[in-house]
Amino acid sequence: MTTAHHPPGETRPGGRTARTRQAVLDAVFAELGEGGFATLTMERVAQRSGVHLATLYRRWRGIEGLVCELLTDLSGSVPLPDTGTLPGDLHALARAIAAFYGDPRMRSLIEAVVAAAARDPQAATALRDFFDERLGLAGAMVERGIARGELPADTDPKAVMAALGAPFYYRILIERHPVDPDLGESAATATWAAAQAGAYRTKNGA
Amino acid sequence: MTTAHHPPGETRPGGRTARTRQAVLDAVFAELGEGGFATLTMERVAQRSGVHLATLYRRWRGIEGLVCELLTDLSGSVPLPDTGTLPGDLHALARAIAAFYGDPRMRSLIEAVVAAAARDPQAATALRDFFDERLGLAGAMVERGIARGELPADTDPKAVMAALGAPFYYRILIERHPVDPDLGESAATATWAAAQAGAYRTKNGA
Repeated sequence: MTTAHHPPGETRPGGRTARTRQAVLDAVFAELGEGGFATLTMERVAQRSGVHLATLYRRWRGIEGLVCELLTDLSGSVPLPDTGTLPGDLHALARAIAAFYGDPRMRSLIEAVVAAAARDPQAATALRDFFDERLGLAGAMVERGIARGELPADTDPKAVMAALGAPFYYRILIERHPVDPDLGESAATATWAAAQAGAYRTKNGA
Repeated sequence: MTTAHHPPGETRPGGRTARTRQAVLDAVFAELGEGGFATLTMERVAQRSGVHLATLYRRWRGIEGLVCELLTDLSGSVPLPDTGTLPGDLHALARAIAAFYGDPRMRSLIEAVVAAAARDPQAATALRDFFDERLGLAGAMVERGIARGELPADTDPKAVMAALGAPFYYRILIERHPVDPDLGESAATATWAAAQAGAYRTKNGA
């Protein structure tokens, strides 16, 4: 149950290193479900995963590294839709985000990542880079919409995607209430209306 | 420079207790400006303010209590406008929020409060109650707009105000970039367009 005597580079992909990693991330996720970030410690992750504390510190540096890697790992489960229309895509993605954050463990996770970023510059960089990449990827749906003539050509794709995401993080981190499907519908309706009104144009529209 | 021998209740309002409180909050604010939440400790606040560490712990419990009180204290500096039209009010408030968070110390402060809430249930409750009250107060501008016939009667005032605020917190906590006046203009334009489109109606509109 431990790779304490096997540095990561020495084992084959999908082998013991991958199993250790999965056991550790599963343990972090389970701990977040029980007590949230408030009770998450390296010791508890070690105990639950059966992986030595020294291994955890060597590979992930600390709680900050663990929660950032878990976010990257799990967010792949939110697919980017391609329904043929931009409002269709916005609603589909908002529904997927609402479902993702409907799970209280996911809300604890994003809270943990933001808290980690407040304390640790490396976590802050990881968080910024992660969302920058996600916004860029999701921006492709806005670019397709522009190409179809659904929005003005000078609409900023990343600004549209940030607008779609913002209500979820406000709800979780600031209002501190659960995320429900209504929030997703509202976010998609709002973002589409605002984009049509020119709120996300790079020139003179903002 | 210290009230270590004067419990809060024993001194008159505006007297030594008030001066101590101000010295402590000023020190927290200055520390946030230098190193952000990452380097903020009770010891540094004690050193900078000249207030005994024991006094700080007795009155504020910890860093969590300090940053929550500072947020409450400072947010009073964002006035709620009454321009006569809802879009006018939304733009005025968004400009004020953009100016507020244009100061990097304010961004460090909100990050600190969210991080504190992740670790400390009392800070989480304080954060939720604080924004709930602010949203309720700001919702009065939406209610005036509804009374003037600017929006459908079943528009949720708090949802409109949450939509106006959300882009700022997304920018600060998730994208981790500075807040500029353009973000305020975009947030106000977007919120007004979305509200007109029915994105924040309590029935069937969402």
